Amino acid sequence: MEEMAGALGTIGSLALRFGQAIFSVASLLFMCLNTEFYSYTAFCFLVTIMGLVVPWSLTLALVDVLSVYFKPPIRPPGILSIVVVGDWVLSFLSLAASCSAASVTGFLLASGDSFCIESLCIRYRVAAAMAFMSWLILLSSTLINIWFLSSV
Amino acid sequence: MEEMAGALGTIGSLALRFGQAIFSVASLLFMCLNTEFYSYTAFCFLVTIMGLVVPWSLTLALVDVLSVYFKPPIRPPGILSIVVVGDWVLSFLSLAASCSAASVTGFLLASGDSFCIESLCIRYRVAAAMAFMSWLILLSSTLINIWFLSSV
Repeated sequence: MEEMAGALGTIGSLALRFGQAIFSVASLLFMCLNTEFYSYTAFCFLVTIMGLVVPWSLTLALVDVLSVYFKPPIRPPGILSIVVVGDWVLSFLSLAASCSAASVTGFLLASGDSFCIESLCIRYRVAAAMAFMSWLILLSSTLINIWFLSSV
Repeated sequence: MEEMAGALGTIGSLALRFGQAIFSVASLLFMCLNTEFYSYTAFCFLVTIMGLVVPWSLTLALVDVLSVYFKPPIRPPGILSIVVVGDWVLSFLSLAASCSAASVTGFLLASGDSFCIESLCIRYRVAAAMAFMSWLILLSSTLINIWFLSSV
C-alpha cells in the first residue's frame, strides 16, 4: 500500500483535518458569541452541523497524529469506507447549512430587518463563509480518501 | 466492458436523466409561473441552476436514447470523466440552490411577509422540494458513473 498525500494517516490529512476544525470553530464563534441565532432555523442548522464537524475532524486528526508519530498507519478498507461516508455526508450537510445561512443573511440585509443591528449580519455572513471553507476542505478530504480507497 | 445498470448509455441512465429533467422543469414551473421570483437572490439562483440542469439532462438523455436504440454505446474514459464532473458540479449547485430557496421561503413564511400572499410561499417550497429531488437523482447518476469509470 503506497503512501498518498492527504489520505487517512498522513501529514497531509492531519493538515486538512485541522483546517476543517479551525474553520468550523471560527464559524461557531462568529455565529454564537453574543447573538440570538436560535430565532432562525437556518442559523440553528448551521450551528448544529458545525457542532458535528468539529468533533469528527478532531477525532480523525487524533487518528492521524497517532499514525504519523507513533506507529505506521493501519487502514483496513472497512474503516476507510466509514471515514469516506462520514466525510461525504458531513460535506453535503455543511454545504447545505452554509448556503441556507448565507441566503437568509442576504435576505435580512436586503430587507433592512431590525435584527441586523450593529453589523450582526456581517458576522453571520462571515460565519457562513467559514462554513463554506470548511465544506471545501471536507470535500477535498473526501475525494482524496475515495481515490485512495479505490486504489487499495 | 460489462454493462452496468444506470451507467451512461443504458436504459437505467435514460430513466435517471428523464427524472432529473422532469423534476427540474417542475421546479422551474412552480417558481416562475405568475410570480415575481426575481426580487430574491436565492430564487434567481434556483431558477438559474434548474435552467442549467434541464438542457444537461436532456442532452445526456438523447445520448442514452441513441446508445440504447440505434448503436451500441461508445464510452471512452474521457467522455465519461466530463459527464461525471458535470453531474458532480451540477449536483452541488442544485443542492445549494434548493437549500437556499427553502431557507428563504421558511423565513418568509415565519415572518409573515406580505410577499407570501395567496399560498405563493407554498409554491416556492414545492419548487425547492422538486429541486432537492432533482439533486438526489443527479447524485445517484454521479455515483453510478464514478463507479463505472473506476471499473473501466
